[in-house]
Amino acid sequence: MTYCIGFLLDEGLIMMADTRTNAGVDNFSSFKKLHTLVDTADRQIFACTSGSLSMSQAVISLLREGLPSSGDVDMVRTLSGAATMFRAAQLVGEAVQIASRTVGAALASVNIGSSVSLLLGGRIGKAPPALYLVYSAGNFIECKTEVPFLQIGETKYGKPILDRRVRMETPLDEAVKVGFLSYDSAMRSNLGVSRPIDVLVMPRDKKRPLIQVRVEEDDEYFNALSREWAALLSEATQRIPNPPFMAEPE
Amino acid sequence: MTYCIGFLLDEGLIMMADTRTNAGVDNFSSFKKLHTLVDTADRQIFACTSGSLSMSQAVISLLREGLPSSGDVDMVRTLSGAATMFRAAQLVGEAVQIASRTVGAALASVNIGSSVSLLLGGRIGKAPPALYLVYSAGNFIECKTEVPFLQIGETKYGKPILDRRVRMETPLDEAVKVGFLSYDSAMRSNLGVSRPIDVLVMPRDKKRPLIQVRVEEDDEYFNALSREWAALLSEATQRIPNPPFMAEPE
Repeated sequence: MTYCIGFLLDEGLIMMADTRTNAGVDNFSSFKKLHTLVDTADRQIFACTSGSLSMSQAVISLLREGLPSSGDVDMVRTLSGAATMFRAAQLVGEAVQIASRTVGAALASVNIGSSVSLLLGGRIGKAPPALYLVYSAGNFIECKTEVPFLQIGETKYGKPILDRRVRMETPLDEAVKVGFLSYDSAMRSNLGVSRPIDVLVMPRDKKRPLIQVRVEEDDEYFNALSREWAALLSEATQRIPNPPFMAEPE
Repeated sequence: MTYCIGFLLDEGLIMMADTRTNAGVDNFSSFKKLHTLVDTADRQIFACTSGSLSMSQAVISLLREGLPSSGDVDMVRTLSGAATMFRAAQLVGEAVQIASRTVGAALASVNIGSSVSLLLGGRIGKAPPALYLVYSAGNFIECKTEVPFLQIGETKYGKPILDRRVRMETPLDEAVKVGFLSYDSAMRSNLGVSRPIDVLVMPRDKKRPLIQVRVEEDDEYFNALSREWAALLSEATQRIPNPPFMAEPE
């Protein structure tokens, strides 16, 4: 299992991915799911992956090595050549389709699912950061202002707190914190989601540095956050009055 | 969609069910999903249903009218004849299997899903209350002390708060309140779950009355709970410090 979140906020882009993978419940492992696709002077492009690990790796490798040319010219196409993030998302969608025809078909022949989805985030040239969700079929949607986050993988346990607490104007540090609270809920309810969590923060303001952090299994800040959140939720529950119809008649 | 919760606690049994049904996103309606199957001096048996509405209704009707005899004797079998809640769960499982062979097969022939699941709760004679989850195949599990609740339908959004705040020793009034908080999260994130919510409370102590309440769309207590919970979560989020790695260098 996997849980990844991308935020596209007034202040910039955030991408988060856990690292747990499993093939059945008796085969857990740890793989990086937040990938740097391009990091050069004029473009920084990252992807989080969810779904079949062999499919994900095939897609990422295809993107790094380049997709076959669509025309007569014998030249591979890479993200370094994409003029915009929309073009980059198209290329990622195409990579998913190519992997589906090869790896996916092989998996289908032995009745194993091959679905994969990606969060694609980054910026090219002077354009502001953008965030896309690329589906198994290679189609994709772009994150817009109404709901400034996208999720892939085990999305439901951690969604309520994001729905409540994340808006376009949420500052980056606050959004990272709420993202961790979302992970805390997902990890409590699904063993297939687990630390380390990789975090990427790309402030819209280019003068602010890109932040890339791995929150390890014994991370003290995350441990404290998890402990305090449990205590605060307990306290909050106590402060809500019990239902009036449950009052014992005197 | 649907969301139902059953709690089996030291103090007794609680069953909750929303009332929203939908056939596609353009056809929402309201149907009771918490059904009284038997309510006599020696037994009180209730069921919550989730899944195909025609399947659910077929199962409930079968149980009320009686299942065909399994032997030569021409006598239907009903829940009134079940000696224990385990036998009742077997009968419900059998009703699900019968409905699958008729309604389910018809639905399958037009590629429509027919899965259905039920929470079965109640008590028979002097035995304490019991709670079962009956699956689409007619098999079932019983609620035990380790995790004193079972859910069907849109279970994930509302599960984290139950995982955190419900234990065997949780009092009934507190559990009903936490159940409402769970519904509040599920309703925020899935339009297919909605009030009215039907609530049944069966205290283990037979001297305490059975409570059956419908929490309507404009219920003031629920509205206040929803408002206060949002405010308390906001406050709790503020009280957690931001991640240290997000601090701006001076």
